[in-house]
Amino acid sequence: MSELPPKNPSLGVAMIGYAFMGKAHSNAWRNVSSFFDVPAFEQKVLVGRDAGAVAQAAAKYGWAEPATDWRTIITRDDIDIMDICAPGWMHAEIAIAALEAGKHVLVEKPLANTLAEAELMTAAAVKARARGAQSMIGFNYRRIPALALARELIAEGRLGTVRHIRAAYLQDWLADAQAPMTWRLRKETAGSGALGDIASHAIDQIQCLTGETITEATGTLRTFVTQRPGTEGMEEVTVDDAAWATFWMTGGVGASVEASRVATGQKNSLQIEAYGTEGALTFNLENLNELMFLDATLPVREHGFRRILVNEPEHPYLEAWWPQGHIIGWEHTFTHQVRDFLLAIRDATPPSPSFQDGLQVQRVLAAVEESAANKSTLTVVRH
Amino acid sequence: MSELPPKNPSLGVAMIGYAFMGKAHSNAWRNVSSFFDVPAFEQKVLVGRDAGAVAQAAAKYGWAEPATDWRTIITRDDIDIMDICAPGWMHAEIAIAALEAGKHVLVEKPLANTLAEAELMTAAAVKARARGAQSMIGFNYRRIPALALARELIAEGRLGTVRHIRAAYLQDWLADAQAPMTWRLRKETAGSGALGDIASHAIDQIQCLTGETITEATGTLRTFVTQRPGTEGMEEVTVDDAAWATFWMTGGVGASVEASRVATGQKNSLQIEAYGTEGALTFNLENLNELMFLDATLPVREHGFRRILVNEPEHPYLEAWWPQGHIIGWEHTFTHQVRDFLLAIRDATPPSPSFQDGLQVQRVLAAVEESAANKSTLTVVRH
Amino acid sequence: MSELPPKNPSLGVAMIGYAFMGKAHSNAWRNVSSFFDVPAFEQKVLVGRDAGAVAQAAAKYGWAEPATDWRTIITRDDIDIMDICAPGWMHAEIAIAALEAGKHVLVEKPLANTLAEAELMTAAAVKARARGAQSMIGFNYRRIPALALARELIAEGRLGTVRHIRAAYLQDWLADAQAPMTWRLRKETAGSGALGDIASHAIDQIQCLTGETITEATGTLRTFVTQRPGTEGMEEVTVDDAAWATFWMTGGVGASVEASRVATGQKNSLQIEAYGTEGALTFNLENLNELMFLDATLPVREHGFRRILVNEPEHPYLEAWWPQGHIIGWEHTFTHQVRDFLLAIRDATPPSPSFQDGLQVQRVLAAVEESAANKSTLTVVRH
Amino acid sequence: MSELPPKNPSLGVAMIGYAFMGKAHSNAWRNVSSFFDVPAFEQKVLVGRDAGAVAQAAAKYGWAEPATDWRTIITRDDIDIMDICAPGWMHAEIAIAALEAGKHVLVEKPLANTLAEAELMTAAAVKARARGAQSMIGFNYRRIPALALARELIAEGRLGTVRHIRAAYLQDWLADAQAPMTWRLRKETAGSGALGDIASHAIDQIQCLTGETITEATGTLRTFVTQRPGTEGMEEVTVDDAAWATFWMTGGVGASVEASRVATGQKNSLQIEAYGTEGALTFNLENLNELMFLDATLPVREHGFRRILVNEPEHPYLEAWWPQGHIIGWEHTFTHQVRDFLLAIRDATPPSPSFQDGLQVQRVLAAVEESAANKSTLTVVRH
Repeated sequence: MSELPPKNPSLGVAMIGYAFMGKAHSNAWRNVSSFFDVPAFEQKVLVGRDAGAVAQAAAKYGWAEPATDWRTIITRDDIDIMDICAPGWMHAEIAIAALEAGKHVLVEKPLANTLAEAELMTAAAVKARARGAQSMIGFNYRRIPALALARELIAEGRLGTVRHIRAAYLQDWLADAQAPMTWRLRKETAGSGALGDIASHAIDQIQCLTGETITEATGTLRTFVTQRPGTEGMEEVTVDDAAWATFWMTGGVGASVEASRVATGQKNSLQIEAYGTEGALTFNLENLNELMFLDATLPVREHGFRRILVNEPEHPYLEAWWPQGHIIGWEHTFTHQVRDFLLAIRDATPPSPSFQDGLQVQRVLAAVEESAANKSTLTVVRH
Repeated sequence: MSELPPKNPSLGVAMIGYAFMGKAHSNAWRNVSSFFDVPAFEQKVLVGRDAGAVAQAAAKYGWAEPATDWRTIITRDDIDIMDICAPGWMHAEIAIAALEAGKHVLVEKPLANTLAEAELMTAAAVKARARGAQSMIGFNYRRIPALALARELIAEGRLGTVRHIRAAYLQDWLADAQAPMTWRLRKETAGSGALGDIASHAIDQIQCLTGETITEATGTLRTFVTQRPGTEGMEEVTVDDAAWATFWMTGGVGASVEASRVATGQKNSLQIEAYGTEGALTFNLENLNELMFLDATLPVREHGFRRILVNEPEHPYLEAWWPQGHIIGWEHTFTHQVRDFLLAIRDATPPSPSFQDGLQVQRVLAAVEESAANKSTLTVVRH
Repeated sequence: MSELPPKNPSLGVAMIGYAFMGKAHSNAWRNVSSFFDVPAFEQKVLVGRDAGAVAQAAAKYGWAEPATDWRTIITRDDIDIMDICAPGWMHAEIAIAALEAGKHVLVEKPLANTLAEAELMTAAAVKARARGAQSMIGFNYRRIPALALARELIAEGRLGTVRHIRAAYLQDWLADAQAPMTWRLRKETAGSGALGDIASHAIDQIQCLTGETITEATGTLRTFVTQRPGTEGMEEVTVDDAAWATFWMTGGVGASVEASRVATGQKNSLQIEAYGTEGALTFNLENLNELMFLDATLPVREHGFRRILVNEPEHPYLEAWWPQGHIIGWEHTFTHQVRDFLLAIRDATPPSPSFQDGLQVQRVLAAVEESAANKSTLTVVRH
Repeated sequence: MSELPPKNPSLGVAMIGYAFMGKAHSNAWRNVSSFFDVPAFEQKVLVGRDAGAVAQAAAKYGWAEPATDWRTIITRDDIDIMDICAPGWMHAEIAIAALEAGKHVLVEKPLANTLAEAELMTAAAVKARARGAQSMIGFNYRRIPALALARELIAEGRLGTVRHIRAAYLQDWLADAQAPMTWRLRKETAGSGALGDIASHAIDQIQCLTGETITEATGTLRTFVTQRPGTEGMEEVTVDDAAWATFWMTGGVGASVEASRVATGQKNSLQIEAYGTEGALTFNLENLNELMFLDATLPVREHGFRRILVNEPEHPYLEAWWPQGHIIGWEHTFTHQVRDFLLAIRDATPPSPSFQDGLQVQRVLAAVEESAANKSTLTVVRH
């Protein structure tokens, strides 16, 4: 793998966006060096459209300077990394330009709002990688230690052959029919609803945990609250509140995914259950420090899901943090993500998940939508 | 409602079958009077094909006499009730004959192995009811106190409008690929696999809890272990190991059901989650004395699923049993079932669930199979 | 071990008392033969003071005849077994007379209300055993399959050396200060409060699980509600609402027990946690089908309490019941108790727990009371 | 409340110690401004004995400069705040000197290793406060949102009158008898073992949650592993591995605390249960984002501990963090602590918990040790 000569003794980082994801990514950049051995870098520029707001956010989140025009930033020699936390419909343009300018690029999920854009981005990433510019899509839940441990256990064969996976991502922030209209509820800005926003995480996990690829999808979508109060009266909600999908995967694995933003009482509950010939495991994001694991090769008399508090130095990422039993939080997943991105840049190895992985998830989402629209099951996922 | 004159001062009961279900039903008949005020009855006859085995079982389970020919029994004047625990393919013939002979009939689920038989049985039940003979299908989980409480809470509007339900029935007794071939794994004797055996319970609950009816179904079936060792070598498994279905119901309710007999580590896990506009509840059969209930009308600061130990005198059926916190077991649901059946006979009111309810579940199962076979979503449930 | 010649082809059983415990014991006698291979017996006589009530109870609970005078009953040749469910202050007189009359005796816990009575009973039991009359104290929780499994695991060394045990028995039926005065709240009838009623179960378990004996006790007692409404105005509560005790045991084991009948929200929560050098386990009576077990000899990366659903044919007592995952209830412990008592009679082996075991628990209770009264820690348990 | 004139436009902070606690405190200082509105401050100096190590730590943890002599630092005008994370035996000297130099002082718990030192420190804090120098003891668990919510609920009367509290702090890092000797296992350096290290947290919580004070203590201590491998062979362990205590408090509250560092399988399990006349709550540090709350004023039919995911903007400290259901970690408690300390400095109000609160906990610990030594229950806590 050829590699760009390091332009700067310390990598210069610019980030675009300072809302929810920008806040989480900033936290990762601000703290990663205090816990992990990573290449030297500087939080140079925070980019946003509102000059006043971005200046305030830069100061608050630890960025040296604010900026309003990302096009200028990607031309700067002192910037090596672009971290893109802007809304999904802006990803393609920025990411492709940044890659072409030779920057390493980290993009928040979803990769893009349309399949076409995602494909262009993936092509750009492949080309850029040949020139040494790395790229990565932000499926941060891959960096939850408990899910990383799950992946290890499956890879080691501790579940035997995985037969089926049961997953759900349940939230309730739209349960209230009076919750206001936002850009997330319009198809043109958000792409889709619960499907793209949260089912996508479950879909990435299903593939990542098993190492298998979804080939066929059956899907159903539903909008329970079809109108919501906007700033100028009631507006149509044009994305789904909930989504159901069944999948077949390579390796003969079956999977179901359910996603809802109206699941009253479920706050942020990504649930994954994997059943194999020799074991099983379950996970819930609301208790992200825990993995339930059942080893079916033990005597039946002792069978039971065991609650592993994934908080030991022996566990992925944990040596860097606190002594056993001192649990970590949701945002630590971003710190792990930045750590792995920086190490991949240092080692000139392709970071994972790649844009290609992001594209694959988008294709599955598209197949779910197509199945739902056509009322036909087992829609083929195009590759 | 007209009523047959009571033929006997004490109701005579005959039961057919003495395997798993026969054992559970016998336990209910043997104990119901010790806990509930029910009409007087006698455990008169246990019917089975093997004279020696049935005699032994009759003695063990508290039946006064054994018999091998159910046709003779249904002609006896001292028999008022027929409890049919024979395999599903025998239900139609016995039940119809018994109803025509003027007996009250309790049939284990599934109502029948084919839709045609189920329809004949339902017609017979309607006719018999006009003459005062009652009939009931044994969806015993309706008599789990926690699920009865769930039904009450939903009926009282404590969940507001139910939007969607997430259900699964997961077992693992077929996870081992070497588990032997049985009649339950042949389509001709069992009708279907996980779908008819266990998903049926979930489907009945979904409709019973909400009071709504399933109108459209999307389904997928899968046999993971396609051959199993029989007495004469490997045999084809001709039913599903696992089933996935998505439903639309009257009232705009969406539902998903997943059933598996290869879900390693799940022993008997019927899970039901219902999400409404004002509350939610969850249940798991492995902890059948508990209902989790979330009241979303409380301040957000206090939101949380509360674990109700459904074991208070205030709870359905519980006054009859033990002081609070002294939990009951799985088989108590059959005792409740017999109690309700006897009270319905006494009061000449139609017991619930009726054969019609059983038929409706069969129709949903058929729609799932049809959807799976045709690869088309949203298959209409025929009524 | 010499043995009385069996007087009757089928053992005749008489039971005294038909309140809560009488109902539970009756249920056990009525059902034990349907599940377990036990010697033949008959539920002959139910004894109580109120002729009308006892006749009704006998009919309801399956006893052939009622009686009001236990003295007459113990002289009957057709009675082989006396099951004593009368209040604790009556135990000594009845049990000693029954043993002297050559009957096998099962006594509900507590063995007696005073240490003196318990000692006389134990002496009588030893003498009677020499003549072939068996005796047993009803610590029914020893027959919970999960706790029986716990005992097996500890005996097999799966916990290594047990270092300390943390136990509690928490209920809340006295949390309401207006809950009325009863005989259970008067020292003269009840002996003590939460200490004797429920802490006694925990104390028995601690010794039974480990096979070790409590040698020193430190205790504190408290009555939070000192007066309660009686039939003639407010009355003094003269027993404890809650009790705390710390113990040292043979083998260097430490233990703590907390008992409360004012632990709001805890319905019947006997909690036991045992920590050893190589493993640990926890149990809660409100989920009595489950045992949590941690095997510390596994790699740290896999450490976790595993929830064993103690419901497999491989588990103690379970082969007799239902397929895996079909949970049993609280009253099944009495069925197991009667089964083990009958088998001990058949085999002429001393049943366990013996009166001696009941006496040992009484001695520990006495030491706790003495420590509480004297404000001195580590009060020696007299043997 | 008089106040020192702010010496510096931005408060200068120096911290002493860079081990486990120093790492956690640094994290708090580094991040607090990104989430909370706090007065401006600078991470100026990190102090440690080893010049090389402290330089490295300063760079890693975000401190502008390293230093090796705290005496010099407390004389500097640009330092306003001393954060003392040095071992307990050094607390008194540094804290008193810093307070006398007019610095605000934050001290990690325990306040000191001896009661005498703790009393001197408290006196110094009272004197310094009169001159405007604030002081605080680092019982960081007071800043767990779930426990802060618990405190609110109790203060609002949602539990009615609290009757008794059951608490434990269980860890297992000393379960292995081969775990090596450390300064934490020597009385002269550590003061005590599980008692001072972890039971102290439970004791602070018990008092803080209820607003009541412990007046009498009964205690027992135990060292299970009396020798451990040191650098020069086996060494005597001179502190306790486990501690048990029972307390009486003002307001008639009873409490029990158990602490162990040999509780195999328990990683960092601070458990607190509070039982009141009208409600109850339970908490476990391993799931620190959750509070279980039972409202006994609801109808009995609906009673149940509800799992509140303490992660809503309505909950203490949470508005600053992530959307609902995105859980926080253990170290966030230190960020909250620094936030509250800074706000108290800004507002010139005494921060809580004070040195006085720390001293009170030390007095309780001393009473437990005295009770254990004298084998007498209900040892009076001296004030």
